Amino acid sequence: MKRIVLGVQYDGTPWQGWQTQPSGKTVQDRLEAALQKFTQGAVATTCAGRTDSGVHALEQVVHFDTHLSREIFSWVRGLNAFLPPSIAVRWAHELQLAADGDEQDNFHARFSASARTYHYLLYNNPVRSPLLEGKAGWVFRPLDVELMRQAAAHLIGTHDFSAFRAIECQAKSPVRSMDQIAIERRGDLIVFTLRANAFLHHMVRNIVGSLIYTGNGSKPPQWIAELLQQRDRSRAAPTFMPDGLYLAQVAYDQKWQLPQQPAGLLPWL
Amino acid sequence: MKRIVLGVQYDGTPWQGWQTQPSGKTVQDRLEAALQKFTQGAVATTCAGRTDSGVHALEQVVHFDTHLSREIFSWVRGLNAFLPPSIAVRWAHELQLAADGDEQDNFHARFSASARTYHYLLYNNPVRSPLLEGKAGWVFRPLDVELMRQAAAHLIGTHDFSAFRAIECQAKSPVRSMDQIAIERRGDLIVFTLRANAFLHHMVRNIVGSLIYTGNGSKPPQWIAELLQQRDRSRAAPTFMPDGLYLAQVAYDQKWQLPQQPAGLLPWL
Repeated sequence: MKRIVLGVQYDGTPWQGWQTQPSGKTVQDRLEAALQKFTQGAVATTCAGRTDSGVHALEQVVHFDTHLSREIFSWVRGLNAFLPPSIAVRWAHELQLAADGDEQDNFHARFSASARTYHYLLYNNPVRSPLLEGKAGWVFRPLDVELMRQAAAHLIGTHDFSAFRAIECQAKSPVRSMDQIAIERRGDLIVFTLRANAFLHHMVRNIVGSLIYTGNGSKPPQWIAELLQQRDRSRAAPTFMPDGLYLAQVAYDQKWQLPQQPAGLLPWL
Repeated sequence: MKRIVLGVQYDGTPWQGWQTQPSGKTVQDRLEAALQKFTQGAVATTCAGRTDSGVHALEQVVHFDTHLSREIFSWVRGLNAFLPPSIAVRWAHELQLAADGDEQDNFHARFSASARTYHYLLYNNPVRSPLLEGKAGWVFRPLDVELMRQAAAHLIGTHDFSAFRAIECQAKSPVRSMDQIAIERRGDLIVFTLRANAFLHHMVRNIVGSLIYTGNGSKPPQWIAELLQQRDRSRAAPTFMPDGLYLAQVAYDQKWQLPQQPAGLLPWL
């Protein structure tokens, strides 16, 4: 038995998120359907981070187990032949499973991940951009990036992020460690890059929504520190639209030698 | 009577090009339908450059005549309320028509234009990118940008571009003046920027297709000079896919004071 790891990119616009649904209109459903066609058998997949409806992935990481032997690039080419234009396998990597069956020693797309990086793209212009439709959030009032940076600084470190956690969140603990929040302006686009050990449900969109309140002057940067302390979701801003959210990178120990893309901005920014 | 000038952005993917068709599935049909709803009357529009099916516009320029008086920004807001997400009016500008009715003195979206700039975005990677689907062409074999630049240099100046002209092209003359062809690599994206006084039908896609033959080593850069001299469409490369083509800017005399975006790369590059 081998464990195959895939790097998967998708445009989340047409999909009801990653996780399988009875409707079948999810990325996982389409990937498993492609696997079934390519391997002639049922294959269950596990991903690093379950993205919501409309959320994109530059490099989602997925694993599954198989007895089949294939050239590594034929996993890429073969699966892409059965995937729709909005989903593609970017790379594949083969790992051996531990002989004694101790799952702890095996690579796991979710449990082996040490950090996740998300981008949020925000178009800041008085008029919406059709060419960024579904690919970037939109705020028509001018935003002050420097104020948002001051606000975001309060979130760095290990905190109880209950203020930014969806009610439906199933995580055992609301404590997460945020390594980085970078906010860069590129013309009329503002690119947020957030890296943490893991994220709560809706956490990036809830943080971006609240940072926008500081960027447009509705709230001072210090408000973010108060929200964090109060741990009350109802005091923070509403969940911001999914359109600009991208799962950009998942970090793993180098020993797995995954052929991941370098972190950084979108490949075309 | 006033002449209203609009800057219009669109994602060409869902549309059968600019020009009105019996199907009604064109950008012009949707823009005129929005104008009809907003002005409560029929309005005929004229554009600077008729884009083909699947081709995008960062800033198409359009004019129409009206007796109505509106605040200038209400043309933008009002029309956008009736336009689908893939089309938006970015700006509007009002001009007076010449009192003596001499059309020569009036601004005309097409005839007053002195130059057009197009971008072609090309994704150069072994695997397709779902997030660039419909927004960039794709070539999986590595391309040498320097060879393509050498090839493109032969096209600068005033030439008979019959080798790069679609059979259906209705222009009176095949002679055009090419000011600039810039080719820049940004990660896995190659951005072509072409500026000419005007373009023949399919001219950008035919040039890009042939430049790709020089970039992948199939043909030497000198081949482009031969194609130009032979004036034979059948010797050049096939018309390349529309996905990566963007009408980026149309140049007019400053006296019209149009509030155009600065030329350059895409606003988010």
